[in-house]
Amino acid sequence: MEFKISKDLISRFEQLIETRQDSELESILNELHHADIAEILDELDFEQATYIFRVLDSEKTAEILLELEDDLRENILNRLSPKEIAEELDELETNDAADIIAELSQSKKEEVISELQDVEHAKDIVELLRYDENTAGGIMHKELVKVNENWNVLTCVKQMRIQAENISRVHSIYVVDDEDRLKGRLSLKDLLTTSTKTPISDVYISKLNFVKVDTPDVEVARIMQKYDLEAIPVIDELGRLVGRITIDDIVDVIKDEADKDYQLAAGISQDVEADDSVWELTKARLPWLVLALLGGFITVHVLKLFEAAMADHGTLFFFIPLIAAMAGNVGVQSSAIIVQGLANDTLSGSLFNRLLKEISLSLLNGLILAGVLLLGTHFLLGVDSVIGMIVTIALVSVIVIASLIGTFVPLLLNKAGIDPALATGPFITTSNDICGIMIYFTIAKLILGF
Amino acid sequence: MEFKISKDLISRFEQLIETRQDSELESILNELHHADIAEILDELDFEQATYIFRVLDSEKTAEILLELEDDLRENILNRLSPKEIAEELDELETNDAADIIAELSQSKKEEVISELQDVEHAKDIVELLRYDENTAGGIMHKELVKVNENWNVLTCVKQMRIQAENISRVHSIYVVDDEDRLKGRLSLKDLLTTSTKTPISDVYISKLNFVKVDTPDVEVARIMQKYDLEAIPVIDELGRLVGRITIDDIVDVIKDEADKDYQLAAGISQDVEADDSVWELTKARLPWLVLALLGGFITVHVLKLFEAAMADHGTLFFFIPLIAAMAGNVGVQSSAIIVQGLANDTLSGSLFNRLLKEISLSLLNGLILAGVLLLGTHFLLGVDSVIGMIVTIALVSVIVIASLIGTFVPLLLNKAGIDPALATGPFITTSNDICGIMIYFTIAKLILGF
Repeated sequence: MEFKISKDLISRFEQLIETRQDSELESILNELHHADIAEILDELDFEQATYIFRVLDSEKTAEILLELEDDLRENILNRLSPKEIAEELDELETNDAADIIAELSQSKKEEVISELQDVEHAKDIVELLRYDENTAGGIMHKELVKVNENWNVLTCVKQMRIQAENISRVHSIYVVDDEDRLKGRLSLKDLLTTSTKTPISDVYISKLNFVKVDTPDVEVARIMQKYDLEAIPVIDELGRLVGRITIDDIVDVIKDEADKDYQLAAGISQDVEADDSVWELTKARLPWLVLALLGGFITVHVLKLFEAAMADHGTLFFFIPLIAAMAGNVGVQSSAIIVQGLANDTLSGSLFNRLLKEISLSLLNGLILAGVLLLGTHFLLGVDSVIGMIVTIALVSVIVIASLIGTFVPLLLNKAGIDPALATGPFITTSNDICGIMIYFTIAKLILGF
Repeated sequence: MEFKISKDLISRFEQLIETRQDSELESILNELHHADIAEILDELDFEQATYIFRVLDSEKTAEILLELEDDLRENILNRLSPKEIAEELDELETNDAADIIAELSQSKKEEVISELQDVEHAKDIVELLRYDENTAGGIMHKELVKVNENWNVLTCVKQMRIQAENISRVHSIYVVDDEDRLKGRLSLKDLLTTSTKTPISDVYISKLNFVKVDTPDVEVARIMQKYDLEAIPVIDELGRLVGRITIDDIVDVIKDEADKDYQLAAGISQDVEADDSVWELTKARLPWLVLALLGGFITVHVLKLFEAAMADHGTLFFFIPLIAAMAGNVGVQSSAIIVQGLANDTLSGSLFNRLLKEISLSLLNGLILAGVLLLGTHFLLGVDSVIGMIVTIALVSVIVIASLIGTFVPLLLNKAGIDPALATGPFITTSNDICGIMIYFTIAKLILGF
């Protein structure tokens, strides 16, 4: 059953395209799921992909368009006329259509909208384009089933059948008043098990979760996960039901958010992928590297301050990477755990308790590592025991300080309303490098008195 | 509408508990969603939480149990008798009940199972306990609606009503033959719009996605996301329908997987949270720190090899943290992008093209940073121009090498069937520290000839 892409498959398609065997192509592709076809198109070159795209009818290509990688979709959209694009969009759900229109240039956008055949659909799409993409309004769709509180179950079932024609998944039936204000919901199951004459106002459940059009998408995701919802209605400022968000939209929000945090922790500041252009990737990576480089300048200055040690205690300098690496790693560990706790809303307890815990945790880690280090300096590295002791004391101090920085910087950023994920990765490693080296040489200076 | 936890709310509950106002407690809590009650219990101390737990009836507490943090749940389960636990489990869906039983000790497990009242439910739970938790069998539940291919739509609707009683979300109706082998599916919508006398064999869709009990959970997640499924049936070795996985189970898989990759990138090797015990956190963090420490030992050795430079070219040593930091950051950036590409299945093209791209990307980054560095060494740091040149050449070389290591180590691990996420974080920074410093001093030695 499972579709598997292979080199053989791709070269078979290449051959069919080259020999222009349209009917053969069509019959093979019609057996495949649109997500599988998109995978195949992503592997072909642009000309071949466009060729296949034109062989298929718009019902299929519209779905494929959604699944393509960004650059291929952009390329194909550039080659299609506004009328052709509008034909694709007429086949799509409102939010998917709006997402595609949002990718077009301003002038093409207007042309495409004017070519849309279904006026209601066009109105819905234009409405969706108004909302910020990171809000409930930006991820909701207009497709939903709603019934009036004054109807009975029979009217409701009839209406539902009509409305459900255009909706792939019904989930809940929303109940509104004459002004379209959201009053409650009906479950499909309740409807199946209730007498047809019952008035809706008797059976609907008035307690339900909803969000407003301007609720941030991550907040919608949090609510839907917490209450285990498969769909949530969206209301406007006047309480009117304007759309619905389903769990599959939320899966994308969760994945995007996790990907973003992961990238920030790795020092990548935009939503990029391995297959993006060198220029896009550079824009995402370079700022963090410049930050790290400037941090490096500071460490050069710090080390200069301790230049005097070089003559008699040169060995001290051999341990710089060790101290810096430990400071960086400990800091990243601490900050990652806090950032994840903040993202998943699992942090509890007071700041003071967290301070105590972080100190005991880092002391425990530090002392175990100090043992390894003492043995290592003595048996493996053969450095003199005073230097060994200095490095060991420095290691424990650096671990404690680095873990405190790693813990409290994201907490402070979060309090200040700044994304705490910024404080993982290069930011933490750079500041901990600097602190670590200062602590290390200060301890050395106090003990050796150079 | 939105529930918000606050200090006032918590202290109100503490007071109600202290003064034993059970009926007041009950009436407040019955208005709240079980997920909200779980949040409150997590904030109370253990005695108070258990008190509230006993005030509520098992229908509510069973759901709460699922939402609690691990240690509180463990504590409460320890205080309940096998009979009391069985009462909770009788209220839960099969997979949730199995998850809770899996947390119990072997002896308690058997006692609890023998106390379960609903024999069918007990059989289902025991069956689920057999499967590995990271497979389709481990995340599926037994609750689903299935109909026989030999029935007609009317029988089917009647049967569905009976079966749907115990199921919170119907999604699809699966069609099986007399041997319980999966044949296809019916959508609720089709059923609503088809005449009642039609035989099921005429209306069911035989093309459907399914997974086997031993399919890995991340693979199930990939399939459900790719084909945009809200539920997928699970079959056993004989093709018999044995369970169903819904999209909300998959949301957890996706989140867990993203959390795991994030933690590995930060050098945390187990599934821990900020609120876990110091000991749990140490077990997750220490191994990576030991790895970094051993890497540090190697850098000490490497630097010793270049000890001769110290007398005349001490300034070289001031740039160690800068070079090491740049090597580490570039390596983490490159590896993170590959790990994410592998996880999201978005990597395409040949290895050779990736090599070319990574080299051009790192050269572009490297040359821009080299410009900043040259200006910095001259104007900010005032080091002599030969040293400035050495550091600059080393920087560009280190960036190229580090990005190649960062790119290809995860690709190789993935080819070898090892989780590529292991190659982010401390592993990459440590190996890049070592390589970076070796490259830097080798270049210095070639130019200065010490």
